[in-house]
Amino acid sequence: MELLPAQQVAFQRMLDTIRRGFERFGFLPVETPVFELTDILLTKSGGETEKQVYFVQSTGALERDRKHHGPASSANPADAKVPELALRFDLTVPLARYVAEHEHELNFPFRRYQIQRVYRGERNQKGRYREFYQCDIDAIGKDSLALAYDAEMPAVIYRVFEELAFGPFTIYVNNRKLLRGLLESYHITDDLQAPVLHEVDRLGKQDRVKVEDALATLGVPQVSVSRLLDTLTAHAGDSRALLASLHDFENPTPAFTEGLAELEKVYQGTLALGVPPERCKLNLAIVRGLDYYTGTVYETFLDDHPNIGSICSGGRYDNLAGHYTKSKLPGVGISIGATRLYYQLMEAKIVQAAAAAAIANVIVLAREPALVPQYLGLATELRARGINVEVYGAEDKLEKQFKYTYKAAIPYAILLGQREHDAGIVKLKDMRAPKGPELDVPRGELVDRVEAVVKHGWTPTS
Amino acid sequence: MELLPAQQVAFQRMLDTIRRGFERFGFLPVETPVFELTDILLTKSGGETEKQVYFVQSTGALERDRKHHGPASSANPADAKVPELALRFDLTVPLARYVAEHEHELNFPFRRYQIQRVYRGERNQKGRYREFYQCDIDAIGKDSLALAYDAEMPAVIYRVFEELAFGPFTIYVNNRKLLRGLLESYHITDDLQAPVLHEVDRLGKQDRVKVEDALATLGVPQVSVSRLLDTLTAHAGDSRALLASLHDFENPTPAFTEGLAELEKVYQGTLALGVPPERCKLNLAIVRGLDYYTGTVYETFLDDHPNIGSICSGGRYDNLAGHYTKSKLPGVGISIGATRLYYQLMEAKIVQAAAAAAIANVIVLAREPALVPQYLGLATELRARGINVEVYGAEDKLEKQFKYTYKAAIPYAILLGQREHDAGIVKLKDMRAPKGPELDVPRGELVDRVEAVVKHGWTPTS
Repeated sequence: MELLPAQQVAFQRMLDTIRRGFERFGFLPVETPVFELTDILLTKSGGETEKQVYFVQSTGALERDRKHHGPASSANPADAKVPELALRFDLTVPLARYVAEHEHELNFPFRRYQIQRVYRGERNQKGRYREFYQCDIDAIGKDSLALAYDAEMPAVIYRVFEELAFGPFTIYVNNRKLLRGLLESYHITDDLQAPVLHEVDRLGKQDRVKVEDALATLGVPQVSVSRLLDTLTAHAGDSRALLASLHDFENPTPAFTEGLAELEKVYQGTLALGVPPERCKLNLAIVRGLDYYTGTVYETFLDDHPNIGSICSGGRYDNLAGHYTKSKLPGVGISIGATRLYYQLMEAKIVQAAAAAAIANVIVLAREPALVPQYLGLATELRARGINVEVYGAEDKLEKQFKYTYKAAIPYAILLGQREHDAGIVKLKDMRAPKGPELDVPRGELVDRVEAVVKHGWTPTS
Repeated sequence: MELLPAQQVAFQRMLDTIRRGFERFGFLPVETPVFELTDILLTKSGGETEKQVYFVQSTGALERDRKHHGPASSANPADAKVPELALRFDLTVPLARYVAEHEHELNFPFRRYQIQRVYRGERNQKGRYREFYQCDIDAIGKDSLALAYDAEMPAVIYRVFEELAFGPFTIYVNNRKLLRGLLESYHITDDLQAPVLHEVDRLGKQDRVKVEDALATLGVPQVSVSRLLDTLTAHAGDSRALLASLHDFENPTPAFTEGLAELEKVYQGTLALGVPPERCKLNLAIVRGLDYYTGTVYETFLDDHPNIGSICSGGRYDNLAGHYTKSKLPGVGISIGATRLYYQLMEAKIVQAAAAAAIANVIVLAREPALVPQYLGLATELRARGINVEVYGAEDKLEKQFKYTYKAAIPYAILLGQREHDAGIVKLKDMRAPKGPELDVPRGELVDRVEAVVKHGWTPTS
């Protein structure tokens, strides 16, 4: 995805809002190098990931490699060494490596945010990018991590998406232990749990009948299928009723009881953090990945655009960095795939390269070559007030300057010609539409007036 | 360079300040993909750059490539195809490609900033990174670009480094046409100009005698050497006197006259933009690269740390994208190598991972499990005021929580135990030093008081 400047401004504002939300909760910034050692990157990944990795070689390494594998050397292409470096494909592996590497210097619970691009060797297609932003937060504990950090995640999601203002959204919360306990209660054996959950995960996306058929095919007895799906979908949208019914559940296993207690605590914490119940709902049909998450899980949907899928997901995991350190590091985190989200929001016309997506608040136009020092002085005064100012630098016709300003979507223009200069005034012009209103402002009042217009908009009394 | 969180906070603030400075002048953000087509990336680069490029291959491409060059195929390793994609090694080539590609959608003069990482296959060594941030601005004209944009560059540099507050600095400005005219006046032939300028460029870095010897070795007559170096170093630091003496120069060539007029106009524009003369000085010994720049050139030095070298440089070029479009696109730009600069500032102890480099302004500590909902409510109220708040989530001993807070360098803590709760108060504690002062604040006043302390610091009347 390569954006034109106006779109880039809008995208940048989205990233800034996400970052501001993360910082409001005190998460610390981390950036990791784009290169990871291939060995580390592929430690725990399955075959799918491996196919998507981008390997990197400097010219020198490439030449050495080529020589080594030329016709004179090894007869077996399988001997070909995989390059030493590769590009990160997510922010989780780098986090695990980072925490393991700096374990003794970090302050636990370690709460970090990371907003960086990741790379996947996918075929280029609509909405799938080879390079895209991920915006992650994670809280990592040493040995243990309080459930309070699970409760914080929906509060961060709520704050970020409220401010992003993409329309109404719902954060769904579930608990994998509870889910496991529930399957146990229906006598679904351990080896069947993963495929069953895989089917349950499709509940929101396809007809219940198809899920029922799939579960039956897996060998779940018909009577269990029906009751299981009833339980998973009961009290949809009414978290309190759902909790009450779960407390009344007939034969809870230990996992069920533990998961329910966790889920309830997380939900209460989230509400105590000011998240309205209509924005955060318990939902037993949320599964979120199969192996990685072990407790709380989250997914977030735009109410009016369910087809976009989850716009922010995550969950609790038992141990972040088991491959890299002996310490036990449980954590909880969420992730926003910002590039894909922005693309989808544009496609759905929820965000548009806003007409007002300029960086400059005001442009000083060039009317009189002799007055240029005045223009520069005005601009410097305005900038000292925190206003973003562009100065038109060429001696072009005014018409051309207006055209430039409209195309750049700079909302206001300052015009100072010889006549205005002699009268001690400056013209301030509303450029948001052609033939917008203009005002004669005394030179000494200009900075205050421009500041007011930039902050509060153009009013009849501007 | 991988930073611990406190350092990352400081680095992030540096990048934010640079970006804010760029935006204050109305430059538009651009981000380009990290991958460029190898053909485009290496179009205009010489052998040196080519050696430093990182090539990228997805797993699939790598396998295809390996098979193709296995022992059964080509007998000549020179046939080995260079990978199709490579990582950008600067922001100039991507800018040229971007402008050429989007030429008809962009608004000229096109003024963009780009803050992204670039990649060079250098050996890892102190202060040299394989991956580092560059922060560039450029103004690109179509067919022509007014000198006003050259004058703007030192004003941006001034604003950024004033706000960064790394100590006194000087922006040196010169003009390559003037320099060329000067060499012509001393009868230095065209083929000698490049090597002569190469030696002149060393004037600031080594003894004048060595430069004299080198110039003599190149074949410049002894008498010319001495007079040339006298002219280049005369009136150092006094830009007005230098301009006056250049106006009196005896036998100016056309290039000299044109360059002098440009230099003077740029200097005057810079002063009119409020840059103090002691921060921006004309300096004829500034050369800045050999082939690329054609007019104005800039270098910036920290007055107290000349050994760090130029911290922000750039200049005017005749044609940005001659390799990619037939349009003539003159431009002017500057670049800050933020990663290297940050590293050097740390080495020189000019920036330190500030004790106060926390993201959270205040932490709510966990005194009573029963009062957690109160803590969460407090935090939400404070966040709504724009204050960054962390809530300690675990039921740890207070001592452990204090230790965490000190290590995290969070300046203030909020304590609310049962006793305080019953009395309707909250404790606000200064955590910037052990045993810092604390205050009992009525619950209803807490948000205002915390806001005041965060904004204005802890005072006896806090």
